[in-house]
Amino acid sequence: MASSGAINTVGIIHNPHIEAAAPLAVKIAQAVRHRGAEVWMAQEVDNPEIAHLVAQTDLLVTIGGDGSILRAAHSTAGCTAMILGVNLGRIGFLTETEPDGWEQTLSRVLDGDYWVEERMMLQAEVRRGAETLAQGNALNDVVVGKGAHARAVHLQVRADGDLLAAYVADGLIVATPTGSTAYALAAGGPIMPPQQRNILLVPVAPHLSLNRPVVLADGVQVQVIVGRRTPATLILDGDVVAELAAGDVVCVGASSCTARFARVRERDYFYRTLMARLAPKE
Amino acid sequence: MASSGAINTVGIIHNPHIEAAAPLAVKIAQAVRHRGAEVWMAQEVDNPEIAHLVAQTDLLVTIGGDGSILRAAHSTAGCTAMILGVNLGRIGFLTETEPDGWEQTLSRVLDGDYWVEERMMLQAEVRRGAETLAQGNALNDVVVGKGAHARAVHLQVRADGDLLAAYVADGLIVATPTGSTAYALAAGGPIMPPQQRNILLVPVAPHLSLNRPVVLADGVQVQVIVGRRTPATLILDGDVVAELAAGDVVCVGASSCTARFARVRERDYFYRTLMARLAPKE
Amino acid sequence: MASSGAINTVGIIHNPHIEAAAPLAVKIAQAVRHRGAEVWMAQEVDNPEIAHLVAQTDLLVTIGGDGSILRAAHSTAGCTAMILGVNLGRIGFLTETEPDGWEQTLSRVLDGDYWVEERMMLQAEVRRGAETLAQGNALNDVVVGKGAHARAVHLQVRADGDLLAAYVADGLIVATPTGSTAYALAAGGPIMPPQQRNILLVPVAPHLSLNRPVVLADGVQVQVIVGRRTPATLILDGDVVAELAAGDVVCVGASSCTARFARVRERDYFYRTLMARLAPKE
Amino acid sequence: MASSGAINTVGIIHNPHIEAAAPLAVKIAQAVRHRGAEVWMAQEVDNPEIAHLVAQTDLLVTIGGDGSILRAAHSTAGCTAMILGVNLGRIGFLTETEPDGWEQTLSRVLDGDYWVEERMMLQAEVRRGAETLAQGNALNDVVVGKGAHARAVHLQVRADGDLLAAYVADGLIVATPTGSTAYALAAGGPIMPPQQRNILLVPVAPHLSLNRPVVLADGVQVQVIVGRRTPATLILDGDVVAELAAGDVVCVGASSCTARFARVRERDYFYRTLMARLAPKE
Repeated sequence: MASSGAINTVGIIHNPHIEAAAPLAVKIAQAVRHRGAEVWMAQEVDNPEIAHLVAQTDLLVTIGGDGSILRAAHSTAGCTAMILGVNLGRIGFLTETEPDGWEQTLSRVLDGDYWVEERMMLQAEVRRGAETLAQGNALNDVVVGKGAHARAVHLQVRADGDLLAAYVADGLIVATPTGSTAYALAAGGPIMPPQQRNILLVPVAPHLSLNRPVVLADGVQVQVIVGRRTPATLILDGDVVAELAAGDVVCVGASSCTARFARVRERDYFYRTLMARLAPKE
Repeated sequence: MASSGAINTVGIIHNPHIEAAAPLAVKIAQAVRHRGAEVWMAQEVDNPEIAHLVAQTDLLVTIGGDGSILRAAHSTAGCTAMILGVNLGRIGFLTETEPDGWEQTLSRVLDGDYWVEERMMLQAEVRRGAETLAQGNALNDVVVGKGAHARAVHLQVRADGDLLAAYVADGLIVATPTGSTAYALAAGGPIMPPQQRNILLVPVAPHLSLNRPVVLADGVQVQVIVGRRTPATLILDGDVVAELAAGDVVCVGASSCTARFARVRERDYFYRTLMARLAPKE
Repeated sequence: MASSGAINTVGIIHNPHIEAAAPLAVKIAQAVRHRGAEVWMAQEVDNPEIAHLVAQTDLLVTIGGDGSILRAAHSTAGCTAMILGVNLGRIGFLTETEPDGWEQTLSRVLDGDYWVEERMMLQAEVRRGAETLAQGNALNDVVVGKGAHARAVHLQVRADGDLLAAYVADGLIVATPTGSTAYALAAGGPIMPPQQRNILLVPVAPHLSLNRPVVLADGVQVQVIVGRRTPATLILDGDVVAELAAGDVVCVGASSCTARFARVRERDYFYRTLMARLAPKE
Repeated sequence: MASSGAINTVGIIHNPHIEAAAPLAVKIAQAVRHRGAEVWMAQEVDNPEIAHLVAQTDLLVTIGGDGSILRAAHSTAGCTAMILGVNLGRIGFLTETEPDGWEQTLSRVLDGDYWVEERMMLQAEVRRGAETLAQGNALNDVVVGKGAHARAVHLQVRADGDLLAAYVADGLIVATPTGSTAYALAAGGPIMPPQQRNILLVPVAPHLSLNRPVVLADGVQVQVIVGRRTPATLILDGDVVAELAAGDVVCVGASSCTARFARVRERDYFYRTLMARLAPKE
């Protein structure tokens, strides 16, 4: 069980679509056992058994890309388990180590030579009249987007009940600081250090609407109300979770859960990555 | 048949989804007959009979919004028929008159007191290996976008054969100057006067890709090559015309056809509309 | 002297460059005296006598535009005086009433029927080696910009000591949420509700540098280090306060002072103004 | 004298502020003489003698950065001399070779194994009433900007006499396609291949004004009229050429002169450079 600092149980989640993931999982499991900790391995599957395991786990090692981390964050929401990502994906803003550095990184974490980075998550809920259609957490973003083939969605946004803006757009992204370097960045949003607590609104291709991102305090309750020209779609961290109809209300606010990452890199790693990735080459 | 200036045959196309359109069509038809010209009326339907009528028509009056004009432009491509739009829609960048001004506008056109505005169109063709999957003209834009539920498409763009850019994005808009105030504007593109001849490329939500619009000369042949992470979708002027697979090539260039508009407003009307619509209120 | 709620002393500051300001000041002074409160009047001049008066004042009425409010905010920093702005300027994001509404607004404030809005300010300090060249507060923004005729400045930015970005640009804006709708908006920054506490970095015309705004928590200490290609200039709320040389460091952080505004409008006034000013007309 | 293709006279212009430029000029001069062509060398100085020399020159080799090329383009405007740039500067969008490749590049040009790239230039003229205050050519851009310390300029822009937009901004850039990757890019403009002929308008930090770039046909005459809140400044290719007052009109149109570059790289070099410079690293 998770106690402060001591890592007694390690879970390893490997992406089934990446060939190199399973063999690496086996190696990591051996290394963990060699250090005397309990270990379990699983593919990325949503099943209740894994949820039960995660609740008993101190450290969750993911082998894959940022998508694997996002799913791990959903499964650890409300638990004390920390996440440690080994990058086998394309970008890796969230992972902690490249494949060739896993041994040193893991060894430092098991030695207690790490720090914990807590990142805020969003909690989203869809209401249709009195009914709750769907709900879930997101580490990157909650997106209300046009469905297949539609040209634009009409959305109204309220902040703590006050009408903030009306959008005709491809979609609206409600993002965390972590998500500010993901889809929100592509749509023109500002960058926020991930340890921060703010809620970011970024419209995607707004047509004759307010076209600036809006940054809100983390205590604000955001409501996105679907107008005509449905269908719209609710997407949490890249996964479609509901089809929306006119009048549906998507309520988004800071989640009481956070994602906890075990870090061995310096605390300024975010800025270093930013400079390396986003500043153009001269 | 169409001869220079003299308007002998008028077609009236009314949008079946707008209640006020059919009664207005009847009134306009009466006014045209009263002036001694031939007139035919139709709802917006693609059928070969109408294509035949359009080829014999001097002036095509559309009753609806910008969407009605776009469909009229497709049907008149390659013909001499001029378009005159009566606005019953939301925005009306393309229409010539609001409903209460139709009598005066129509009267001036039938008197020969008008000028003709020619606007360039795009010609698009999808190639899968040796096969041509689909083709068509567009007055606003050719869009290669992500299909339903996909997060992003991977696209490679060539200009006259040279690799111009690789995009990971929600989509890529290839637009005419007319389209520069439509979807391309929403996606962050520059504005171009509609009489101009240029080809505009605007990515939608590009992620860690070239994120600037590119303006090309109208003689350039653009190729958009679909990469992995299909499905992608080909959209001409807002209508889905093909589902695309990895390796498909969308070839886009200036069409030999133009859209011809009968105008009674001053020749600077575009800038006036621009100022009125796009400059924020103080 | 200022006590909670009760308004015993009112200062009136009028802009000497607006003809209508002085006569309006006289009328407002009469109304205040009629209500039994002490009143003093002054043109906008920096002199020690006024600083002394402001310290003894409960309410400072400004007659002018947003510039008058900014100067009032500087003079009340560290005092309990609230600001109430009557708009005789062009935009008026900060003022509380248009000229024709002053009587009702003032009357409600003197009746105690108002709420107090506190807005964060920035504190800036220029260091050249061990020396402090200049310092001051800003309600909108601290700008390090190119001087006259220079093409660009080279700047390095550190956040709590970590290198965040290097810019070649016309300048860098460090703004408060209040400033997010001023110069920072013009330079492409996001919008933040003014009651919020965040620090916003927006480069102006960055050339092959990080070109996204960055939003930081209000506790972060920002350092802007001037590189070669001087001269650079330090501007606080629109006023040039220092000429900067290579190696100079501008330290910016949240000020311990806030600007306090007396408000009679609804608490959602910011969003209403935003919608009215920034959303394009359809 | 310049005849088609044959290069009999070569001028070498070296930047006096770059230490390595003069020795390299000497080496290049030797190589040219060895090939039997006439050669002259000069520092970058505007003097009538050099203008006279340039008129007799077939190839002008510049040793410096893009700034050296811009000055060379001004001096060759109206002549047949081609420009060949050796890059000793920071960026080098305009230069043809890095220092270590000069021998091969020069040799190919002297062998006639090159192509000529013609790039459009702008012609600008300032009118104050009936008087012409200043005029000149620009290869990159004509900028009407705020002078020292001013916050913003108020500008009105006309296109062929029609009011296009009114700006309150740091400045307005009128750029060629060549300039689209220079200051205009920093200010948010689109990219245009340099062989194209278009006029690009990009406001710098526009405040509550039209904030989109506008692309015009190359035949359009642009007028920029200076409003209140002077002083404004006229800058051609980065050099201040006039201080402007309220009411001054800056007339800008395509110049009858072009800049002619001798190129040995492939004709798609522009896109290759674009990809290498502007696409972020993954």
